[in-house]
Amino acid sequence: MKEMNLLATDDWSDKEILALLDRAAKLKSCAENAERALAGKVLLMVFFDPSLRTRTSFEVAMLKHGGHAVCLEPGKGAWPIEMRDKVVMDEDAAEHIVEAARVLARYGDAIAVRAFPKAETWEEARQDQMIKGFARHSDVPVINLESTRRHPCQGLADAMTIRERFGTDLRGKKFVLSWAWHPRPLPTAVPASAAIAAARLGMEVTVAHPPGFDLDPDDTATIRDCLNRSGGSFSESHDLDDAVEGADVVYAKSWGSLELFGNAPAEAECRAPHRNWRIDEARMESTRDAAGIFMHCLPVRRNVVVTDGVLEGPWSVVTDQAENRLHAQRALLLSLLGGE
Amino acid sequence: MKEMNLLATDDWSDKEILALLDRAAKLKSCAENAERALAGKVLLMVFFDPSLRTRTSFEVAMLKHGGHAVCLEPGKGAWPIEMRDKVVMDEDAAEHIVEAARVLARYGDAIAVRAFPKAETWEEARQDQMIKGFARHSDVPVINLESTRRHPCQGLADAMTIRERFGTDLRGKKFVLSWAWHPRPLPTAVPASAAIAAARLGMEVTVAHPPGFDLDPDDTATIRDCLNRSGGSFSESHDLDDAVEGADVVYAKSWGSLELFGNAPAEAECRAPHRNWRIDEARMESTRDAAGIFMHCLPVRRNVVVTDGVLEGPWSVVTDQAENRLHAQRALLLSLLGGE
Amino acid sequence: MKEMNLLATDDWSDKEILALLDRAAKLKSCAENAERALAGKVLLMVFFDPSLRTRTSFEVAMLKHGGHAVCLEPGKGAWPIEMRDKVVMDEDAAEHIVEAARVLARYGDAIAVRAFPKAETWEEARQDQMIKGFARHSDVPVINLESTRRHPCQGLADAMTIRERFGTDLRGKKFVLSWAWHPRPLPTAVPASAAIAAARLGMEVTVAHPPGFDLDPDDTATIRDCLNRSGGSFSESHDLDDAVEGADVVYAKSWGSLELFGNAPAEAECRAPHRNWRIDEARMESTRDAAGIFMHCLPVRRNVVVTDGVLEGPWSVVTDQAENRLHAQRALLLSLLGGE
Repeated sequence: MKEMNLLATDDWSDKEILALLDRAAKLKSCAENAERALAGKVLLMVFFDPSLRTRTSFEVAMLKHGGHAVCLEPGKGAWPIEMRDKVVMDEDAAEHIVEAARVLARYGDAIAVRAFPKAETWEEARQDQMIKGFARHSDVPVINLESTRRHPCQGLADAMTIRERFGTDLRGKKFVLSWAWHPRPLPTAVPASAAIAAARLGMEVTVAHPPGFDLDPDDTATIRDCLNRSGGSFSESHDLDDAVEGADVVYAKSWGSLELFGNAPAEAECRAPHRNWRIDEARMESTRDAAGIFMHCLPVRRNVVVTDGVLEGPWSVVTDQAENRLHAQRALLLSLLGGE
Repeated sequence: MKEMNLLATDDWSDKEILALLDRAAKLKSCAENAERALAGKVLLMVFFDPSLRTRTSFEVAMLKHGGHAVCLEPGKGAWPIEMRDKVVMDEDAAEHIVEAARVLARYGDAIAVRAFPKAETWEEARQDQMIKGFARHSDVPVINLESTRRHPCQGLADAMTIRERFGTDLRGKKFVLSWAWHPRPLPTAVPASAAIAAARLGMEVTVAHPPGFDLDPDDTATIRDCLNRSGGSFSESHDLDDAVEGADVVYAKSWGSLELFGNAPAEAECRAPHRNWRIDEARMESTRDAAGIFMHCLPVRRNVVVTDGVLEGPWSVVTDQAENRLHAQRALLLSLLGGE
Repeated sequence: MKEMNLLATDDWSDKEILALLDRAAKLKSCAENAERALAGKVLLMVFFDPSLRTRTSFEVAMLKHGGHAVCLEPGKGAWPIEMRDKVVMDEDAAEHIVEAARVLARYGDAIAVRAFPKAETWEEARQDQMIKGFARHSDVPVINLESTRRHPCQGLADAMTIRERFGTDLRGKKFVLSWAWHPRPLPTAVPASAAIAAARLGMEVTVAHPPGFDLDPDDTATIRDCLNRSGGSFSESHDLDDAVEGADVVYAKSWGSLELFGNAPAEAECRAPHRNWRIDEARMESTRDAAGIFMHCLPVRRNVVVTDGVLEGPWSVVTDQAENRLHAQRALLLSLLGGE
């Protein structure tokens, strides 16, 4: 079962991902119900960082199929877990990830974890030790509810939403991941996962951001690998207006500079000049036939990342996108735990 | 369905309220079971302010009928939500109520919200923006779990408890809402809702409080409107001994001065002389045939709001009142979600 | 039903405890399933102190039999409850334990409570007022999820684990409760409960600890009473190497000095010289045939209380012990609520 973990959609084959997306669509349309397929199954969710959509949509997903989720919210710092090997645990952490994972695996049928542990450097943060530690020491499947590097369930919902709007043949469709200004430096898990999702679908992928805001080179390599297999193309842009022109999908998301990770004043200074990286009606009007769709993972800061006019206009699919979290996760849970 | 929201019992007709109360009594006595009537239904509860009785009784109410509640407890300040229109969200709030309500409405069959958002002035607080915002932007029913102005489920349980003790013909029965001293200025949601409930039932309603502690004029007007329809009467009193004499129901509850809302020192000074506004055995002995009932929504400060002797004596119905939250809410949920 | 509370395993007869352990083993091996035996039943769990294993294992235990647990986590200090009689509640506490217990008993089929309330002196703490208060005022069974003095469900899981390894005839088997150094003074609930469990099983019980770390004299008396009935023996030791030699079970656990309770600097000074009270491979090699088992309730500080080598070696049963919480609690809940 270990190989069925959803640490990152990267771990699954293209065929597996497309099968999941097909199933998610069937579940949404009630072509498949599977009302009791998870009866007696328990998903243990561990949130080291808080959540609204993820927690609710997973809990409802289990309930829709007769199963249950148990939600553990140790909270920031409330359950400090040691992740290093061989350490003498005489400081804050009272529990080691080895025991936490092994024990939870005895209680539940799958473990789901959200954690972006604090780190001093990107070199350290990018190791994504918490989610990997749970996967290494658990005997049951481990689902990533968002880690430092990936938010695979968001990526699945994103792909599902794009297919709902444009069908399954996405050759030639232009997907623009557009960096946005935001008052705080946010993680790159969502933008990386969204771009990988679009790459899997074979779209023409553009990543637009100001200088200094490159994604992790490994993530860019993963996007390119997916595109090589799917037949899409890749480009980068430092000009937002240029990037969104003719787009089919504008996916806005802010993230912090990885080069300046851990150096808050320099990072803020690097971000400051780019408040104009915001999606407004004019930019959406410049999309293909003025009919591109606007995507965002939510929560979104109105009139900072995107204007009210876009969110209330014909372009926005953000509520569908959030709803599709539910259906994509139903498909995932049925695949992992549904006994087929 | 929108019209079936329970924002305040004010929104429901007298006939609807009485039907709910009848059903609640049947559910309590097991004359109706409806064991699976909410199977597959999910209630999403959002607590911006903490809760013991409300959370437990709603969660159990869903379970009693085969449904489930998901309980989100963002906690005070942990999930700051923007409620204003058109604002540029570059400060604390990372999510707008529009998105929160729309998304939750995709995940659940109903949304229940407890929120008394901080406000500088009563003019601002009395708008009750959070609960109204959820109702405006949700496509599924919204239930008020206590807002700044109303606690309708408490009002339903109060009415149910009075009918249990005195039957359904409550003409001529005297209901006294009695202000009590308390170390902090509390909201008026419970006293307003209790008085409205008694007014719906056609009782002789007296609101007793020291000078400076009037309810909001709109609430008093609502109480009077209900009494005009139900045939009861209204009076106010500044003399507690006089008010409780001959009462059938003594409903004790503290609240802060609305005139001095936001001015903590002046409010405390205004409250200070009234520590004698406490229900003791002598006051209960002065009720009709010494057999009036003592009501309180709980939690209650013993020997501050009411003496041990009253709570342990023959008068107190506070535990029944708390239990009736469960049954009133079962009736409510079956009406909103039971598919009839 | 009151006599069926599990305040402490002390309250149950030896015969009742052994029957519970037999049933737990059957549930674990699927010789008994009882899949719907708790259908419609609700367990209300109140955690005044946080929990991972206890909360999860109880929630899953209810789900395994068709019931549900509602988990209330007021958090440290967030729901200050008054426990004293006759007090004028004009300070922090807004609710009295009398009302809390009575109301929860109306909503659920059983109440489970974890609380180690702060106290100035051991004389005060050892009264265990919170769990006893809930039991006194509740009309439904009350389960102790760990109080200042006892952790009975841990004791049941400990006993079950020992029987799994050594069978049900434990005469002559040596059980060593071994104090361990730890950076903080921990409660004695787990060590007392573990030693009582071993005493019930009729083992040769040794309690090893540095001078100044005696268990409460009443706990030692309870251990001796159990051993008098079960036919085992009791000894104490201040020499860890000597104590573990030839042991069948080494149960490591740290606890603070009761003599110095409330005097943090003196207690820390008393504890400081004993960092060598740690279980390592050499000590486990000295157990009977080098095949003794290592037990700990978890969470455990690696390389402080026990070395990595022991936890990863052939001796450790800590994950089984944690799993057995689930099965022991299933047996308990079925006995209390299963309607037989």
